[in-house]
Amino acid sequence: MILNKDTKILIVGLGVIGGGYAKALSKKGYKVKCITRKQSDIDYALEHDMVIGGSPFPDPDLISEADLIVVALYPQAFIDWVKEYQKHMKPGAILNDVTGVKGGIVNEVQSFLRRDVEFIASHPMAGRERSGIEYSDDMVFKGANFIVTPTEKNTKEAIEFCKSLGEELGFAKISELSPEDHDSMIAFLSQLTHVIAVTLMTSNTKEGLEKYTGDSFRDLTRIAKINDRMWSELFLCNKEALLSQMDAFAKEFELFRNMLSEGDEEGMREKMRLSTSRRGLFDKPAQN
Amino acid sequence: MILNKDTKILIVGLGVIGGGYAKALSKKGYKVKCITRKQSDIDYALEHDMVIGGSPFPDPDLISEADLIVVALYPQAFIDWVKEYQKHMKPGAILNDVTGVKGGIVNEVQSFLRRDVEFIASHPMAGRERSGIEYSDDMVFKGANFIVTPTEKNTKEAIEFCKSLGEELGFAKISELSPEDHDSMIAFLSQLTHVIAVTLMTSNTKEGLEKYTGDSFRDLTRIAKINDRMWSELFLCNKEALLSQMDAFAKEFELFRNMLSEGDEEGMREKMRLSTSRRGLFDKPAQN
Repeated sequence: MILNKDTKILIVGLGVIGGGYAKALSKKGYKVKCITRKQSDIDYALEHDMVIGGSPFPDPDLISEADLIVVALYPQAFIDWVKEYQKHMKPGAILNDVTGVKGGIVNEVQSFLRRDVEFIASHPMAGRERSGIEYSDDMVFKGANFIVTPTEKNTKEAIEFCKSLGEELGFAKISELSPEDHDSMIAFLSQLTHVIAVTLMTSNTKEGLEKYTGDSFRDLTRIAKINDRMWSELFLCNKEALLSQMDAFAKEFELFRNMLSEGDEEGMREKMRLSTSRRGLFDKPAQN
Repeated sequence: MILNKDTKILIVGLGVIGGGYAKALSKKGYKVKCITRKQSDIDYALEHDMVIGGSPFPDPDLISEADLIVVALYPQAFIDWVKEYQKHMKPGAILNDVTGVKGGIVNEVQSFLRRDVEFIASHPMAGRERSGIEYSDDMVFKGANFIVTPTEKNTKEAIEFCKSLGEELGFAKISELSPEDHDSMIAFLSQLTHVIAVTLMTSNTKEGLEKYTGDSFRDLTRIAKINDRMWSELFLCNKEALLSQMDAFAKEFELFRNMLSEGDEEGMREKMRLSTSRRGLFDKPAQN
């Protein structure tokens, strides 16, 4: 199957990511429908030309006509949804997700999924601090990474299909990682940073500090406003990889603490120079 | 003394902060001169209407005509400069600094300073990742905090003078703290965040991670590009307060680690909810 304007797309769950997908794809001229719990979200999506139709129930007609089903739910809810409704899917349909951890999920879904439907997993590395369709915005995909995480069960066709989906959504960079490499990378780049932001926000609860805050503290804690249900689930889904990154961070933090305590100025400066040069690699490329 | 357009201002050290001061004050019509090591920085400042004159040497004439001397050097260099050149200062002059730690510095300078010159300390909480006059920008003061840290040796007049300097520089909020409260606050809000950013940047040096980075990691490590000479000096100047904040952070981090390890979802969610509500206090006020 090739992604084109006749591809019938169904998005399940119009949250901040599902809503962004709907907006980006509809803008490009794709026919997008949705299944999402609240009728008011469907109304919002219709008014904003994000979908051409939708249902607050898992309508078998909507499921069975779709060539591509993108399920934008939390990890466990995604697994449960597929178990329950795969029976309605069209033979040859492609199933895709947006979950932020892959290891457990991809293998599990591929193990119970019908043989005539293919699940190709991907992680759009873009989000917002707020949840809900009214915060969805396809512009967050610009400059962001879209990572496809195939297994040996996936076909080349589905992998290519999924990559072209990432391109159509407007992501700057499309790449491929194994589910395991993806999870280790995400434990460091995304989950550890959220743990740090939360810890920073809760480790000193003295009153009135906000009066003196500058941009550094604001930057480090922007993501401390966090969806507790989603992130605790993501952390637990990726527990071993995250624990390993947390332990490496704690060890390095203690090393720096001891340098400070011992007045080892040159040791600290060396860490800072390494940090400065490594951070250069992570600069955002200039956007058009 | 009252700050007005006839006040002769001398800025010592045209770096990113000293340059910002020169630009902001000259724009407002103040007469600003400078002493700064590189002739090319003086030329730059003259070309950009940031100063009306300057010298690459500690010219006694420039020092003795100044009503207000702002020394924008690193902490130890600031102390050394005052010791060496206070002999040239005009009786009744006001001496001011921009250093990011106060405890040791304020008491020391006030202890050896001539009785007919008053040192009133302040910390402009704004900076940039880069150093040098070409990165100076008075716009970074908008929305930022200006903290005056007087001791019992300071006069009400000098405290008010310093606050009006903060206002003229364009800071959004001018406040007053004791040097000790200032240092404890800065250890948490500024120094700890820099330690965390550096640690995050050096705790996982796997190659290629930058290909997958998103905004969260970029935000947490923006300040990981760090001036190693300045920050190691600032850390050592404020060692006890910083160690205490680092230890509180490490303890809270370990607590979260144990919750994850034990699968304590509700415990993690409670921390996240506390984090989310506390972070709301730190939102940047809307700017005009």
